[in-house]
Amino acid sequence: MSNPVLVEVLRGALVESRHRGAVAVVDADGATVLSLGDVARPVYPRSAVKPIQALPLVESGAADKYGFGDQEIALACASHGGEPAHVEVATRMLARARLDAGALECGAHWPSHQPSSQALARSAGAPSGLHNNCSGKHSGFLCVACAAGVDHHGYVKPDHFVQREVRAALESLTGVGSSADQCGIDGCSIPTYAMSLTALAHAFAKFGTGEGLAPERASAAARIRAACAAEPYYVAGTGRFGTEIMQLFGARVLAKTGAEGVYCGALPDRGLGIALKCDDGATRASEVAMAATVARFLPMSEDERGAVGRFLRPTLRNWNGIEVGGLRPSEALSQ
Amino acid sequence: MSNPVLVEVLRGALVESRHRGAVAVVDADGATVLSLGDVARPVYPRSAVKPIQALPLVESGAADKYGFGDQEIALACASHGGEPAHVEVATRMLARARLDAGALECGAHWPSHQPSSQALARSAGAPSGLHNNCSGKHSGFLCVACAAGVDHHGYVKPDHFVQREVRAALESLTGVGSSADQCGIDGCSIPTYAMSLTALAHAFAKFGTGEGLAPERASAAARIRAACAAEPYYVAGTGRFGTEIMQLFGARVLAKTGAEGVYCGALPDRGLGIALKCDDGATRASEVAMAATVARFLPMSEDERGAVGRFLRPTLRNWNGIEVGGLRPSEALSQ
Repeated sequence: MSNPVLVEVLRGALVESRHRGAVAVVDADGATVLSLGDVARPVYPRSAVKPIQALPLVESGAADKYGFGDQEIALACASHGGEPAHVEVATRMLARARLDAGALECGAHWPSHQPSSQALARSAGAPSGLHNNCSGKHSGFLCVACAAGVDHHGYVKPDHFVQREVRAALESLTGVGSSADQCGIDGCSIPTYAMSLTALAHAFAKFGTGEGLAPERASAAARIRAACAAEPYYVAGTGRFGTEIMQLFGARVLAKTGAEGVYCGALPDRGLGIALKCDDGATRASEVAMAATVARFLPMSEDERGAVGRFLRPTLRNWNGIEVGGLRPSEALSQ
Repeated sequence: MSNPVLVEVLRGALVESRHRGAVAVVDADGATVLSLGDVARPVYPRSAVKPIQALPLVESGAADKYGFGDQEIALACASHGGEPAHVEVATRMLARARLDAGALECGAHWPSHQPSSQALARSAGAPSGLHNNCSGKHSGFLCVACAAGVDHHGYVKPDHFVQREVRAALESLTGVGSSADQCGIDGCSIPTYAMSLTALAHAFAKFGTGEGLAPERASAAARIRAACAAEPYYVAGTGRFGTEIMQLFGARVLAKTGAEGVYCGALPDRGLGIALKCDDGATRASEVAMAATVARFLPMSEDERGAVGRFLRPTLRNWNGIEVGGLRPSEALSQ
């Protein structure tokens, strides 16, 4: 059975493309509030769980030891655009642990933020691990190792101290054990463990509320949420949906993208966690689906409802700036 | 009813993402040889019909008047990467008609070929219409206007001489009338008319064989096919599937990508036309689906079967070059 269409792409009067997928919204008790499509099928959460993967950095005391503020903690949760400010904060995080870019094991890629990529090329530069969208998370991982006095080399491997800590945090929030046959290697070389959208949404409900967590963990989750709400630019970047929706709603929405069409988040004061995946892996559709899910469950002012419209129905323009179409949530998602 | 899964994306042992779509393979008499999914639903062919859109350039005598060879004609069919050699040929085409980049109405974008984009940035350059992936098609359009002594301004508009000629060629090959309610605006600002995959595949069967075409049109189609087979680099570019599959099979495969997951082509000596679209618009899946369709209908040597494997099952590597997964055609497509 196929998942429902979540998002339609229009050109002129016709639907040109369609994105199917599944959405789970779950409360902190594990009760399902919305279930669209197959929410039981295991999916790799990819980068969408970075806020949860940042728990050891805060809980262990490493963030305090190195004097990290909101920017550093937000960047540890980020899939950023490799903009100069992102690179600067990652560099600062590493320097606090007396490390540099050479310690990063995430691999290098050109900044996804195109003006930053072009500026880097213009300056005859080449990308390093600092420009990798995961460099904040990796800098955080390195700090966890260094603060614990553990050799950081190989920190991306499943059996390294850092990944064991990260896995334990994920397992405790999701309630799902991590088995090797559900494990893939992520773009940045760390393990990613497949699990149901229901389990992911439940984890984000707990992360968003602190309910069901030990006091230290609840406190660490609150600090990470506050950092993302205070510095959403450091969670994604210029012009990015994740940044802009958190700028709009502040602490009322936590939103984190993952590769291959995953989006997770929480509506803390509604007590809800959200996890969704577009079957085909399309980011453009996962963003509209996330916006629609937020719009469905978050009470908002008229002004906010007006502002959220451009995330629900983004316009497509061509190379001459002519409006040629747009995206919209499907009826199934809008109801 | 949903279309079948055409392509699966694996990470580790799991299918991470799935691409649905429809495929039509039709012969020059209009008999359907393969039909997967809803092949009757109108889809915008986008750039996949560029070889057909190039017919007026050759048929009108404009290509001869301006002394065009295989490179120019191939570029008129291209969605190219904006590499320096592509820009050079487009510049040459325009110069023959005493025009320059200022005449292009396609809009500018950075080269999709990343090394060329970075080199352009390093040289403190900025993209022009010449770097637009459609600049060859647009240069051809301008030459059609100039050779006919028609004012070229506004050549992208549906009612301009050039678009009327292009539309007439498309209508005669597809057998489908172009109505305003099936018309969208393409990325490069020309009209694109939605039609069934069956009609598109039939058009490519006729284009690939010349059957059912007037002698002058059949001859123009043969010249365009020969140009693409001789200069496939100018139809797409470095590392691109379209270029590489035509390099592998020469005149036995015509393959042309279109935006939003469309792929069209012909197997001339099999007398077949191919048209497919991935529902979600994903290029990565349309390429695998095209490779699988070619592999299903084209007799090939053992060496060729070995070589085509990397298009059927491309490997996914992460930023450290580690193999993390791959794509594969679904069972429905492979049968």
